[in-house]
Amino acid sequence: MAQLCRVALDAMGGDNAPCEIVKGAVNAVNATNNIEVNLVGKQELIKEQLKKYKYNKDRIKITDARDVIETGDSPVMAVRRKKESSLVKALYIVKNDEADAFVSAGSSGAIIVGGQTIVGKIKGVERPPMAPLIPTAKGVSILIDSGGNVDARPNFLIQWAKMGSLYMEHIIGIKKPRVAIVNVGVEEEKGNALVKAAYPLLKECKDINFIGSIEAREIPNGEADVIVCDAFVGNVILKLYEGTASTLIKTIKGCMMKNVKTKIGALLIKKALKQELKKMDATEYGGAPLIGLNGLVVKVHGNAKSKEIKNALLQCVKFKQQNINQLIAKSMKKEEKEEIEN
Amino acid sequence: MAQLCRVALDAMGGDNAPCEIVKGAVNAVNATNNIEVNLVGKQELIKEQLKKYKYNKDRIKITDARDVIETGDSPVMAVRRKKESSLVKALYIVKNDEADAFVSAGSSGAIIVGGQTIVGKIKGVERPPMAPLIPTAKGVSILIDSGGNVDARPNFLIQWAKMGSLYMEHIIGIKKPRVAIVNVGVEEEKGNALVKAAYPLLKECKDINFIGSIEAREIPNGEADVIVCDAFVGNVILKLYEGTASTLIKTIKGCMMKNVKTKIGALLIKKALKQELKKMDATEYGGAPLIGLNGLVVKVHGNAKSKEIKNALLQCVKFKQQNINQLIAKSMKKEEKEEIEN
Repeated sequence: MAQLCRVALDAMGGDNAPCEIVKGAVNAVNATNNIEVNLVGKQELIKEQLKKYKYNKDRIKITDARDVIETGDSPVMAVRRKKESSLVKALYIVKNDEADAFVSAGSSGAIIVGGQTIVGKIKGVERPPMAPLIPTAKGVSILIDSGGNVDARPNFLIQWAKMGSLYMEHIIGIKKPRVAIVNVGVEEEKGNALVKAAYPLLKECKDINFIGSIEAREIPNGEADVIVCDAFVGNVILKLYEGTASTLIKTIKGCMMKNVKTKIGALLIKKALKQELKKMDATEYGGAPLIGLNGLVVKVHGNAKSKEIKNALLQCVKFKQQNINQLIAKSMKKEEKEEIEN
Repeated sequence: MAQLCRVALDAMGGDNAPCEIVKGAVNAVNATNNIEVNLVGKQELIKEQLKKYKYNKDRIKITDARDVIETGDSPVMAVRRKKESSLVKALYIVKNDEADAFVSAGSSGAIIVGGQTIVGKIKGVERPPMAPLIPTAKGVSILIDSGGNVDARPNFLIQWAKMGSLYMEHIIGIKKPRVAIVNVGVEEEKGNALVKAAYPLLKECKDINFIGSIEAREIPNGEADVIVCDAFVGNVILKLYEGTASTLIKTIKGCMMKNVKTKIGALLIKKALKQELKKMDATEYGGAPLIGLNGLVVKVHGNAKSKEIKNALLQCVKFKQQNINQLIAKSMKKEEKEEIEN
């Protein structure tokens, strides 16, 4: 029998809280029997939203939280001081083992800080990376790190490559996922100081299928499954990817509405276009997990709608079923053992 | 009267040499009287191509060069040893003041190394950046650096911001160009070590119109005119931008050819779409100048066709007319003076 996954959902995080968050929770609960959602936030607001829907009342509960972390708050201070916030309270629910996973559309910084300090790291993990799935022409790749480690050390990248490989193999189902490091060229001698130091370590690493460097141009083509980089570069990739796609789609839509002729043309290709563009839609993949913690912590877009919330919740179910954290813990233990032996 | 601009054109560089290079030269010469092109490369191959066209023979000449720098060659070694290569010979023509500008679709590394060592830097310029123009929803921005300075120092970024501003103001005609630094958030305390060090220096700099950080998402929207970053990040932006656009356009074209209905639809919107997408086409802007040298050095895409070569040559004419190098030299002198005073 499939395991039940219990998720603490920050009902107050993001631009569309609580209405889209609550809607996403209801849709997830109605989509699978394997999930139980704990909505954390101002209970009167959550109840008001819940009234609109039909769902199994045994699988949605509410934990009242009176405070909210705002975008402008300093992550470290907010996590330390706003103990009554929905984000912090939801993380404590995971820490106390009353939930398996945490999902929030709130402040990335607070999620990263709170994830590490409240939920805690798996033993041996140096810096937990935030690793969104990005859509490509061939399917999906994991971009690791695009979180807080903007000045990374080479050994961080090796751990990220291993964790990303486990994720792609066990959650996405890609055998021997191809790992590549983001670089300014494909030749081995290229790169900045970080890449030059990390490249030989990745090459030596036996636990991964390292295929060398990837130029940013090849990312949308899906030329690697696990794309390793420091979080500054990862953030640039993630945001530019979204920005370019959205600007281009806006441009194309503008063309289609130009005159009567183009409007008729648009009607004829609309369905096919919608299908294709759906494949390139990041919200289909349900957010970015913070990997390497004692529990699953997932950040979704600040402007997430119910669809992304629902997909993130369903991804949590898969994560739990695949026991990824045990696999990561095992991989880290092996690393430690090898270090002692050498 | 407009000044004549003499360009040394590497006829053997890039994937489509010499045929597309020669064609681009002919088209430029036929488009304006203010240009004289010196085609550098294997003369028998160049002559064979030139036979195909009608043009003013006084304004295209040939300098024979028997060797070619290949993509796999180490830039430093190639520039040092392949003295008879088209790339090196063309750079010497600029150094000897027999040309004002150099254009090549050849190895970026060799152009950067050769530009600095053969043509030489303007006094005071620490690291000449490669600064392509990138198309945006609002027009065009300059991305500075996307060349060789992958591990940049904060003071390099200040010089790049100044040089980029001069370029955008005098070549593109944007008054008080908005300068922004690529960052992972807009708050002042965000960033990696380099950005955190460069930010306050940019803020203090009186010669530029610094508007703060720009997230990669906003770049395609044209939210800044001068986009400053280290060359690793710049390279990622440039290549991902091109890669995402090309994958997306391929996807859309695929949709349009799906069935009879979509094909008819495609016919109706084709013209409008083509017009719009042309605005987003990087080859319209004629390559990336290496700024801060004693002469203009321009790198075009390795796969450049005649259109991009022609546009690069025409950009050289504008560069010469605007006396950008004198403006940069003046700005560097001012910097030196301010340093002495402080």
